Amino acid sequence: MKHLLIIGAGDLAETVFDLANRELGVGVAGFAVHAAHRSRSLVCGLPVVDLEGIEESHPPSAYDLFVAIGYKDGNRTRQRLVRWAEGLGYNLPALVSPDATIQAGDLASNVCVAAGAIVQPYAQIGTATLIRAGAIISHHGRIGEACYIGPGSLMGGRVDIGERVFIGLGSRIRDGIKITDDVMIAMSASVTKDIVNSGKYAGSPARKTA
Amino acid sequence: MKHLLIIGAGDLAETVFDLANRELGVGVAGFAVHAAHRSRSLVCGLPVVDLEGIEESHPPSAYDLFVAIGYKDGNRTRQRLVRWAEGLGYNLPALVSPDATIQAGDLASNVCVAAGAIVQPYAQIGTATLIRAGAIISHHGRIGEACYIGPGSLMGGRVDIGERVFIGLGSRIRDGIKITDDVMIAMSASVTKDIVNSGKYAGSPARKTA
Amino acid sequence: MKHLLIIGAGDLAETVFDLANRELGVGVAGFAVHAAHRSRSLVCGLPVVDLEGIEESHPPSAYDLFVAIGYKDGNRTRQRLVRWAEGLGYNLPALVSPDATIQAGDLASNVCVAAGAIVQPYAQIGTATLIRAGAIISHHGRIGEACYIGPGSLMGGRVDIGERVFIGLGSRIRDGIKITDDVMIAMSASVTKDIVNSGKYAGSPARKTA
Repeated sequence: MKHLLIIGAGDLAETVFDLANRELGVGVAGFAVHAAHRSRSLVCGLPVVDLEGIEESHPPSAYDLFVAIGYKDGNRTRQRLVRWAEGLGYNLPALVSPDATIQAGDLASNVCVAAGAIVQPYAQIGTATLIRAGAIISHHGRIGEACYIGPGSLMGGRVDIGERVFIGLGSRIRDGIKITDDVMIAMSASVTKDIVNSGKYAGSPARKTA
Repeated sequence: MKHLLIIGAGDLAETVFDLANRELGVGVAGFAVHAAHRSRSLVCGLPVVDLEGIEESHPPSAYDLFVAIGYKDGNRTRQRLVRWAEGLGYNLPALVSPDATIQAGDLASNVCVAAGAIVQPYAQIGTATLIRAGAIISHHGRIGEACYIGPGSLMGGRVDIGERVFIGLGSRIRDGIKITDDVMIAMSASVTKDIVNSGKYAGSPARKTA
Repeated sequence: MKHLLIIGAGDLAETVFDLANRELGVGVAGFAVHAAHRSRSLVCGLPVVDLEGIEESHPPSAYDLFVAIGYKDGNRTRQRLVRWAEGLGYNLPALVSPDATIQAGDLASNVCVAAGAIVQPYAQIGTATLIRAGAIISHHGRIGEACYIGPGSLMGGRVDIGERVFIGLGSRIRDGIKITDDVMIAMSASVTKDIVNSGKYAGSPARKTA
């Protein structure tokens, strides 16, 4: 693998650095953020550069990228930047912890799977989706692009989840459930029926709250 | 291990195939279902044969069996077929994912333990019980015959669970709880008191619903 | 490592014995309890000696200690005995299952991490804290002294937990939450706000119950 430039400089970027550098032994060149958002010059001891101009400072011929931007804007910025970087010719590798268990086939670009997570047989994970520690994607499940699958969340068999969906810490999705795009499932929620309208859902069983 | 014939041809059978074949390197001969239920001729690229007559087509001298039938009939068919197959002289091996953690002694026949599951020290697991991904059976626990222990479910220390009990995805059983036979614990339930009557239980704390 | 003397003789001591002896290959000399509490002469086949007088029978020059006393008194006895033993010059090693994932730095004295547990990058764990199977301490989290982190419990990023806190089986703590000292979070609870008063909390969202 080429050296890696991480886009983002927050907590998620720090955990991606740890995964790439310590767990996987990938050389990390540094971090990149929009000039207007740059508040630190060093993260994890490495330089933070302006995102504007990385095509020259860190060209796709020499660097891979990973977009480590979280869910606070509904996972939109991460999805947009991954598409932008792919358009520029960058490779955005999947980063999988050696302590995760992947039983499905190849993972898409800019997917991150943290320690203890399990992706069961015949499951599919979309580009730019982040799977946090201990989450379980059961057999035949489908997770769309740019989702955030929170720590310890549980998805039963054959779930079908759209794009930019947030699955909160410790929430549970019943077997066979479909969830549309742009849904936020709160921490500890339990989803027992299909979700066909975008918005926020919470509780056990989960109900629409916003 | 001899070649394995899997009884069943649904999602569970496919996941058992993946466990046996890909994870454990066991040769799988195919699948067997009752002739009346046979809707596909191939599953995972292997033949589906009639269950009637396997004593001749796949005799116990040449084949092991694994009964991969789920919980929809209250775990009764799996228990019955395991007993029937044992009566015919078949060996029904325990199949344990290399990514599971078994800290107890030998496992009984036709037990399946998926990736990420943990069976702690001094625990006992009954014949024909299925333990799904990420489930935890804590120390000194006892799980009876033909149970289904759902993904990510958590059992505290010294739980004592009867026969044909279904433990739903993400449900939690307090330390020391006893549960009688033929109980169904719904997804996400939290069991805080002993259950002495068969039936369905849901909620947090769990209450009888049927 | 020197031979280990385990203080305590209950279920927790048995699981610590299994971790030290079977998982880690540490020689265990036996168990020690206050003479007034000694009800068995053998545990796991090894002698139970009086805690009074271990400085002579099992001096710090020849033995390490691990205090395997649970949470029933609010984690006070374990904390007190660890401090007492450190004062006598004993080494109290951290015991970490080979099936746990530690992504943070060195662990403090008398910490126990069971199989399947995950301690993420940049997290800190205090002396005498017990982390049970499958629990997840997310990135940048801080757990104080003498806590008990129950099986399958989930802590989001940057949680900050005080001393002698009990986190029940399957409970979940939101990102960034602070919990003061001497708090008991019941099984399956979901903590969504800071807890500034000691006491018992239960439910989803968690509320004070005692």
